[in-house]
Amino acid sequence: MTLWQDAAAKKREEISALIPEAWRIDNLPSVKEQVDVTEYVKQYLSEEELSITESDAEKIVGKTTSGAWTAEKVTRAFCHRAALAHQLLSCLHEIFFDAAIADAKKLDDYFAEHKTPVGPLHGLPISLKDQFHVKDVETTMGYVGWIGTFEGKKGTGKEKVFESEMVRELRASGAVLYCKTSVPHTLMSGETVNNIIDYTMNPKNRNLSSGGSSGGEGALIGIRGSPVGFGTDIGGSIRIPAAFNGLYGLRPSTGRLPYEGMSNSMDGQNTVLSVVGPLGTTAGSLRLVTKALLSQQPWLHDPFVHEIPWRSEEEDKIQQLLQFVGESVPKEKKLVFGVMHTDGVVTPTAPIRRAIEFVTKALEAAGHEIFTWSPPSHKVLNDTGFRSWVFDGGRNVREAFALSGEPMAPQVSLYQNEMKEFSATEIAETNVAMRALKKEYMDYWNSTAKETSTGRPVDAIISPLAPWPAARREKYKYYGYTTWINALDYTTVVFPVTSVDKAIDVKSSDFKAVDEKDQEIQDDYDPEIYDGAHVSLQLVGRRLQEEKILAVAEYVGKLIGK
Amino acid sequence: MTLWQDAAAKKREEISALIPEAWRIDNLPSVKEQVDVTEYVKQYLSEEELSITESDAEKIVGKTTSGAWTAEKVTRAFCHRAALAHQLLSCLHEIFFDAAIADAKKLDDYFAEHKTPVGPLHGLPISLKDQFHVKDVETTMGYVGWIGTFEGKKGTGKEKVFESEMVRELRASGAVLYCKTSVPHTLMSGETVNNIIDYTMNPKNRNLSSGGSSGGEGALIGIRGSPVGFGTDIGGSIRIPAAFNGLYGLRPSTGRLPYEGMSNSMDGQNTVLSVVGPLGTTAGSLRLVTKALLSQQPWLHDPFVHEIPWRSEEEDKIQQLLQFVGESVPKEKKLVFGVMHTDGVVTPTAPIRRAIEFVTKALEAAGHEIFTWSPPSHKVLNDTGFRSWVFDGGRNVREAFALSGEPMAPQVSLYQNEMKEFSATEIAETNVAMRALKKEYMDYWNSTAKETSTGRPVDAIISPLAPWPAARREKYKYYGYTTWINALDYTTVVFPVTSVDKAIDVKSSDFKAVDEKDQEIQDDYDPEIYDGAHVSLQLVGRRLQEEKILAVAEYVGKLIGK
Repeated sequence: MTLWQDAAAKKREEISALIPEAWRIDNLPSVKEQVDVTEYVKQYLSEEELSITESDAEKIVGKTTSGAWTAEKVTRAFCHRAALAHQLLSCLHEIFFDAAIADAKKLDDYFAEHKTPVGPLHGLPISLKDQFHVKDVETTMGYVGWIGTFEGKKGTGKEKVFESEMVRELRASGAVLYCKTSVPHTLMSGETVNNIIDYTMNPKNRNLSSGGSSGGEGALIGIRGSPVGFGTDIGGSIRIPAAFNGLYGLRPSTGRLPYEGMSNSMDGQNTVLSVVGPLGTTAGSLRLVTKALLSQQPWLHDPFVHEIPWRSEEEDKIQQLLQFVGESVPKEKKLVFGVMHTDGVVTPTAPIRRAIEFVTKALEAAGHEIFTWSPPSHKVLNDTGFRSWVFDGGRNVREAFALSGEPMAPQVSLYQNEMKEFSATEIAETNVAMRALKKEYMDYWNSTAKETSTGRPVDAIISPLAPWPAARREKYKYYGYTTWINALDYTTVVFPVTSVDKAIDVKSSDFKAVDEKDQEIQDDYDPEIYDGAHVSLQLVGRRLQEEKILAVAEYVGKLIGK
Repeated sequence: MTLWQDAAAKKREEISALIPEAWRIDNLPSVKEQVDVTEYVKQYLSEEELSITESDAEKIVGKTTSGAWTAEKVTRAFCHRAALAHQLLSCLHEIFFDAAIADAKKLDDYFAEHKTPVGPLHGLPISLKDQFHVKDVETTMGYVGWIGTFEGKKGTGKEKVFESEMVRELRASGAVLYCKTSVPHTLMSGETVNNIIDYTMNPKNRNLSSGGSSGGEGALIGIRGSPVGFGTDIGGSIRIPAAFNGLYGLRPSTGRLPYEGMSNSMDGQNTVLSVVGPLGTTAGSLRLVTKALLSQQPWLHDPFVHEIPWRSEEEDKIQQLLQFVGESVPKEKKLVFGVMHTDGVVTPTAPIRRAIEFVTKALEAAGHEIFTWSPPSHKVLNDTGFRSWVFDGGRNVREAFALSGEPMAPQVSLYQNEMKEFSATEIAETNVAMRALKKEYMDYWNSTAKETSTGRPVDAIISPLAPWPAARREKYKYYGYTTWINALDYTTVVFPVTSVDKAIDVKSSDFKAVDEKDQEIQDDYDPEIYDGAHVSLQLVGRRLQEEKILAVAEYVGKLIGK
C-alpha cells in the first residue's frame, strides 16, 4: 500500500518533470521577493512569445486562420508561458505540451494543404480545468486516490482513452489542448488547494488566492499562460477565479454548453447543476469559443443541452451600443441596470463598493438608467440552494478521500464529518422550495417594468461577486454573492473593473456590521495586503441570455476602459 | 368527521348539479345498450351545435377570429356536448359553464368594439385536466381528501383564487375555459378511476378505458365535447388517452410549455419530469395552441421553460411534403422513418401490428425510407426510469389518501404498501444511470446516419403506444411503450391510424410469447370486445422537436387519410 504522501509527491514530480529543461526557472523567487509575478514572468519570454501570449483569443485566431501565425508557434509560446506559470503559481495538474505541438503541426499541415482553417478555433490553445477527460493523460480532480484510475475506479477501460464531449468539439473546431489546470479537491471551494499540487496562488498578488474551484484556470489565464480556458461553476467556480484574476468569465445557464463525459463531485445531484463555461482575457474570447461550440450542435451529443444555436440577433441590439462609447447613447437605446450594493447578509469591502460606484457613474454618464435592485431574500435563496451541496451528507467526497487516506484541506472541511443523507421526500421538498423561490425572483424581475422609464424590465443586474477583491488564504467565509446565481440558473458574466489602491480603498471608519460575521469579513480586508489586487463585478442576466449578457459585459468593459 | 364516501358522493352530485336541466339525458343508456356513444350523443344536439362541435380548433378560430361565429355560440355548443359527455362517460371533475359563457360574452364585446380578436385563440373552448388551478373552482385531482382544500391544505388563501400560469396565458390568448376533466387518483395510471367520479369510459367503446391519466380529456375530446385540451404526461398520460380515443396528442419535451402553478403528484421529483401538452382532434389543433402559448413568452413566467419561440423554419421543411400527398415525394425531400415493431419485452397485439404495417407501406409507397429501429435495451431504460416513480416509497400519494381515509383503486395499488425511500446517494446514482442511457440512445440515433440513404440520421420513429388499442378495465399491465419516451424526454405525437376490425384483427394462431406476461397480454386481446376501437401509433422525435414532429404527424395523418 502506497502512502498517500508518496503517491502525491510522485504525481507532483511527474507534472514538474514534463516541463522542458529550457523552460525551468532557476532560483524561483519567494512570495516575499515577488508578490506580483505578472511582470516578473516576462523576462523569460522572447519578444515574439510576449506578442503572442498577450494577444486575446480573437486576435490569435485572426492570425492563425489567416496563416499569419502558425499553430505551432502559438502553441509553443503558450506552453512556455504555462510552464513558467506553474512554477510560480502551482496551477497545473496535467501537462501535455508534446501532444499539443504535434496537434498544432497537423493543423499547420492542414492549413498548408487546404489553404483554410480546420475550424473557427484553428490553432488556438485552450486550457481545461481538471474535470475534462483528455486522452493520454489522467484526471485526478486533485484527489490522490484518483491517480492511476478513471474517476477513482481501476480497470474501467476508459483510463487515458476516454475524452469528454466538449474535448471532441474543441478539437473539431481546431483548438489545441495542452494542459489541465488545478482544482481544490471536492471542487467545493473558492480557493484552490489539494494534496497533489498544494495551493494555487494569484499571479497579481501571491498572498491571495487565485480563486476556485477553477483556480488553476484563473491563475494560468491571469498570468497569460492561456488565452482562454474552461472551468465549471456550481457555486461560483468559474466566476470567482475570473474575478480574482481580472478576467472575463461566463457562467452560462444549464443546458447551454455540454458537460457530457466530464468528471464531477457528487455527480447525479440535479437540483443545482454545475455548468461548464469559459474564462478569458476579453469578452470577445468568451464569445468566440461559445459560438464555436454551439456551431458543433452539442445538443446532438449531450442529452442535457438545449437546441439553442448562437443567436446573433440577441447580441446585435446591444453591440450597437459600442458605437456610442465616449458619448451619450440615444434615449431609445438606453439600458436599465439593476444595481445591488449589498445582499443584506455580508457587506462588500471598500474596493468592491468603489467598483460599483465607478461602474454606476460611468453607465449614468453614458445615458443609461440605474435601478436599485431590491430583490426577494438572497439569504433564503442561498440557504435553500445550499442544501443540494450536502444532499448525500458528504458521502461522495468522503469516499474519494478514503481511496488514499489523504486528509481534507480546511477549505472543504464542511464535508469532514458525516452528515445525514437527505431522503427522497426531503430532496423533493427542496426542489419545490427552489422552484417557488425562482418564480418569486422572476416575478420581482418582471415587476421592475413598472418602474423603469423604458417600460421594459431591468436589462441586467450589476452585483458584487464576493465581498472582497480576492480571498486571503483560508479566509473564504462567504459564498452568498455567487451562489444565488446558481440557485436561479441565471446567465452571468464577470468583468474586471479596477485594482485595489491602498491609498483610496481604506477601511471604512464608520462601518456598522449587520452581525459578527459581517464584521469579521470587513476586518479581513487589509489595504496593505490587498494593494494591487484585481477588483471585478458580475453582470447578471435572465436564464439562457448568454448572447445578450456577453455583449453587455463587452460594452460595459469598453465604457470603463477595460 | 365526514366519511369519505359522503364527501365523495356530495362532490359527485355537485358536479352533476351544474349540468343545466335542459341538457340532462333522461333514461341514460346502459353500456350494454350503447357501447359506442359517439353517434348516440348526436341526437341531443342541434344542427348548428353539431357543426360547431365537429369542427377542429383551427376551423373554430377561423370563424371566431373573423366574426363568423360568436364566442358565446361556440362556447354554449361545447358546454352542451361536454354535459352530455359527462353523463355518458363520467369525464368531468369541474364544470363552470356559466363563467365560460360570461367570458365568451366579454370576448364578443371586445370583438364588437375593436373589430379584432383578443388573441389567436379568441373564443376557442379549451378543456383542462384537473391539475390546472382555475379561479372559482376546486382542484381535487381525484382525491376525496383534496375537496375543499388547496392541494390538500386548508387555509392557504389560494383556494379557488389561484390560477396556474398556463391558465393566465390561455385567457390572454382569448381561450374560453369551461370544465376540468377527470384523472385517476395519484395520476399514475393508464386508466382513469377515482372515488369521486368512478371510472371514465371510452366513448368509442364503453367496455374499454378512455386511457389515463388525462383520461377525462381523452373521453371528452373523443366524443367532441371539447376541440382541444391540455393533459400532462410522466409515463404516457397525454399519449395514452389520445391514442385510445383516436386523437392527436403532443408530449413535448420538458421545458417547452409552462407547468408553473399546477398541482401534481410527487411534486419535486425531478429525475423524470411530468410535462404538459395538448390533445385534439387534428395535428393542426395542437400546433395552434402550442404556438399561441409560445407567443406568450412563457419563459418569462415559468423558471423551467426554455426561451425557444415557435420555429416555423423547422416545420416548413416538413410541411412542404403535404403537396405530395397522393404521389411520390422527390428523392431529396424524402424522410427516413425508424420503425419499432416490438420493444422485445411485450409483443403488440394484432391491430397494432396491422397499423404499423399499414403506415409503413403508405410511407414506402410515398417514396420514404423505412429503417428497422434496433435501439439499446428499452427494458433497462424503463426499469431505470421507473425508479423515479417510487423515489419517495409512495409517501406522497399515501398521505393524500390518508387525508380522507379513502381506498386506493387497484389500478394504482403499486403505492399500497410502504416502500423504502431512496436516499440522496441512490437518487444520484439513478440520475447518473439515466444520463448514461440517454447518451447511449442518442449515440445510437446518431449512428443511423451511416445506414440511411439520405446520410442523415433517422427523422422520426414510429412506435406502438401500447400493446393494445385501448386497455380493458383493470388490465393495463404494461407501460413500457410510453415510459421510454419520458425516460429519454423525446418529443412525441400520437396519431390515429385505423379501427379494430374483428374480422381482420384476429388473434394470431402462431404467436410465440417471450414469457408469461407477454402471453397474458396477447390473451387479453379479444377481437369481439375490441371491435371498433381506435388504433393509434406514436411518432417520436429527438428532444425539443415539437415543430418538426407535429408537422410529420400531420403529413403522415394526411397520407393515411386521417
